[in-house]
Amino acid sequence: MNALGRHVLAEMYVCDPRALDDVETVRDIMVGAAIKAGAEVREVAFHKFNPQGVSGVVVISESHLAVHTWPEFGYAAVDVFTCGDKVDPWDAVNAIADSFRSKQVTASEIKRGVIIDVGKERVAAG
Amino acid sequence: MNALGRHVLAEMYVCDPRALDDVETVRDIMVGAAIKAGAEVREVAFHKFNPQGVSGVVVISESHLAVHTWPEFGYAAVDVFTCGDKVDPWDAVNAIADSFRSKQVTASEIKRGVIIDVGKERVAAG
Repeated sequence: MNALGRHVLAEMYVCDPRALDDVETVRDIMVGAAIKAGAEVREVAFHKFNPQGVSGVVVISESHLAVHTWPEFGYAAVDVFTCGDKVDPWDAVNAIADSFRSKQVTASEIKRGVIIDVGKERVAAG
Repeated sequence: MNALGRHVLAEMYVCDPRALDDVETVRDIMVGAAIKAGAEVREVAFHKFNPQGVSGVVVISESHLAVHTWPEFGYAAVDVFTCGDKVDPWDAVNAIADSFRSKQVTASEIKRGVIIDVGKERVAAG
């Protein structure tokens, strides 16, 4: 089974709420995690909401990292999508969890774009 | 069970490869799907890769839409994350699949940020 991408969805609870509510901090953490994981950053888009919360995405050559924060719950929804063998999405997820000082993380990896070769025929399987 | 967000991951196979390889088309489709679903667009970041493929994200008030395309396989990996009751992520996913003329779509919804109230105590469950 060959997958084109790996998509890790991470629930980060019991985070530092001040970090979650500061758009520059969140952006620096997400971009830093991308670089730490060996990704090449292409586009960065972050937005601060009123009264609280930050949403943002880092587009990388190897796909993307996204975050949405709820400081009032100490919660961040993080997802990291990578393609290719160069970048491990878990390196980025771990770096983000550390930076948010999350004390409770659950995460799972989903294979994206599974292409199965059956004999000479290429079959797409979802 | 209350979830803060709904995250739909969609595998779109057998798409129009020309649409998947044109960054303006992909951006218009993603932004159009966000608007069609009733979302408020905040930030847009798209990138065209060489020799082929497009990655991009639309940050909306209600979270995000992301896409990564592999025109050589006729495949697009789409994910739509929404919070609140105003926007249904499936409206956006259906609009995107139609626009890419995908003939084979599989998708699933994942609840994000589940906060369980147990008596007076708020408990985070991942």
